Amino acid sequence: MNMLVDGEWQTDAYESTDGDGSFERGETTFRDRIRDDPDAEFQPEAGRYHLYVSYACPWAHRTLLVRALTGLEDAISVSVVDPYRGEDGWQFTPDKAGCTRDHVHGADYLRELYVRADPDVTCRVTVPVLWDKREGTIVNNESKEIMRMLDTEFEGVPAGEDSSADLYPDGYREEVDRIIEEIYDPINNGVYRAGFATEQEPYDEAVDTLFDALDHWNDVLAEQRYLAGDRLTEADIAMFTTLVRFDTVYHTHFMCNVQYIREYDNLWPYLRDLYQTPGVAGTVNLSHIKEHYYTTHPDVNPSRIVARGPDLAFDAPHDRDELPGSPPAALARSGANE
Amino acid sequence: MNMLVDGEWQTDAYESTDGDGSFERGETTFRDRIRDDPDAEFQPEAGRYHLYVSYACPWAHRTLLVRALTGLEDAISVSVVDPYRGEDGWQFTPDKAGCTRDHVHGADYLRELYVRADPDVTCRVTVPVLWDKREGTIVNNESKEIMRMLDTEFEGVPAGEDSSADLYPDGYREEVDRIIEEIYDPINNGVYRAGFATEQEPYDEAVDTLFDALDHWNDVLAEQRYLAGDRLTEADIAMFTTLVRFDTVYHTHFMCNVQYIREYDNLWPYLRDLYQTPGVAGTVNLSHIKEHYYTTHPDVNPSRIVARGPDLAFDAPHDRDELPGSPPAALARSGANE
Repeated sequence: MNMLVDGEWQTDAYESTDGDGSFERGETTFRDRIRDDPDAEFQPEAGRYHLYVSYACPWAHRTLLVRALTGLEDAISVSVVDPYRGEDGWQFTPDKAGCTRDHVHGADYLRELYVRADPDVTCRVTVPVLWDKREGTIVNNESKEIMRMLDTEFEGVPAGEDSSADLYPDGYREEVDRIIEEIYDPINNGVYRAGFATEQEPYDEAVDTLFDALDHWNDVLAEQRYLAGDRLTEADIAMFTTLVRFDTVYHTHFMCNVQYIREYDNLWPYLRDLYQTPGVAGTVNLSHIKEHYYTTHPDVNPSRIVARGPDLAFDAPHDRDELPGSPPAALARSGANE
Repeated sequence: MNMLVDGEWQTDAYESTDGDGSFERGETTFRDRIRDDPDAEFQPEAGRYHLYVSYACPWAHRTLLVRALTGLEDAISVSVVDPYRGEDGWQFTPDKAGCTRDHVHGADYLRELYVRADPDVTCRVTVPVLWDKREGTIVNNESKEIMRMLDTEFEGVPAGEDSSADLYPDGYREEVDRIIEEIYDPINNGVYRAGFATEQEPYDEAVDTLFDALDHWNDVLAEQRYLAGDRLTEADIAMFTTLVRFDTVYHTHFMCNVQYIREYDNLWPYLRDLYQTPGVAGTVNLSHIKEHYYTTHPDVNPSRIVARGPDLAFDAPHDRDELPGSPPAALARSGANE
């Protein structure tokens, strides 16, 4: 039971496919905004907001990364759900390694938060969730918007020592928006369209589109360190959370098996470069990632056996620092270096 | 229905696992021998025997390869079943590309031959089957024994022009037997033990054992062209039919995804060397291989979608001819070169 429809939890599969065997991702529901504006309902404040994530989920991972890179770890607290998502949806199992309790409500299931936020809610229960502890409601559950809010609206909030990233810098914003939009369908959601297809044709289309896009960005990254040029931006965050899962889960579990990312001349060093950026590795939990995908989709992997997967040397030298640009730790917040 | 038990076709899954989630392969049943001996019941003769194979099956593939390499293509006829094995087992669908009718009986299903050979038969219905057209019965359905018979008992039978291989040469026989035995459990059957495991532990054990063995043979092949040294032997045939399927099906479908064969320094050139040996490529039908595995095991791949898989450049140069040894086309039959 993962979906509330007219107050009833439905037992439909979490992911759904259309009549033609194509995977269609549902819309997220809570779309309020935190704005750095005295008139705004949700204003940036240290200690007011709480983030619910799964380490397994690439969308939630985006928000964890921005929180880490912008030094908001003290300002925004986090709860982590169990990587296994069963019939009752995302669950809190604080005794499991890497998981936490629900620090705000002590809930057992994530869906309880959705009902608290709106008793009449009718939607899929997904991560990430940005919760407002003061108003007792969900601000937003759309990863792209949470990522942007944390990145741009919290400049006045005291950041941690490692804070130095401005991931949506002036002069790059149009390009960042364009790239995030451009990679969503073929890459970020493309792996899901391949993995959840139930007919050959939509699978083939998804795989073709995915690897065409990966080939394209591999070429782009031969000449520049980051997707938008010489600055690490939200576009890289959006790409990273798919790439870091690719060889371990998407490649085999979702049958995106034309080649490994580690076989790409530029995407693989690029992925290592991002992984080695201060703050990033601490957000990557491959154990949760593997458990989630292989055990949560019985329609894809009935045995629920977790595939071994390749050993990935994320810490191997990447030599990407020979390209123009530097990691965000060397950059001042708010684009002062421009 | 794939198994005859007490005259009844059972609907059990073709492959079975034990209570502990391990895959156990059943025994083959027909174990008579063709012998080059005037007193033998089954003597080598051109035109007398017929081979039933699936291009998908690695065990059947062994017999096709020996038939090709020893020049017995005119002497032993072949029928090819549909790569999709449904609830009624292997089937003849002559209108499908690469498939043939049953040239001997015009049967619709392979199981009909088993009943003709023995109305009281109780066994799995498998390929390869070596059929005696004169006696109207199955001689043998154990690939290792058929491979050996074709290789060693047909010397007096006129062979085709390309015949030159002696794949079980004097001076190598002990080593060939040892290697065939040694690679069976971890590699040839190991991919099945990984793919059909229904519990994590037997899967993990199978994957560990498999890649340890692949690593070992990759090292061995750094110094010598073939498994038994400088001669292509039945041991290479036994290894080849697993390796040629590996990256396309075992890697993803059976979750043997620690690495591709094409990532191995020596196994991959070795595989290309074998593939480029005259007579070999004509026995490899990757289309049948992919269709069979991905569509035939709904317990492993419920969607029955055929994964794209990597493009494999089997025809790329291999440079293995710098090592001692030469392909069988240059060798005289019966080990005259020794």
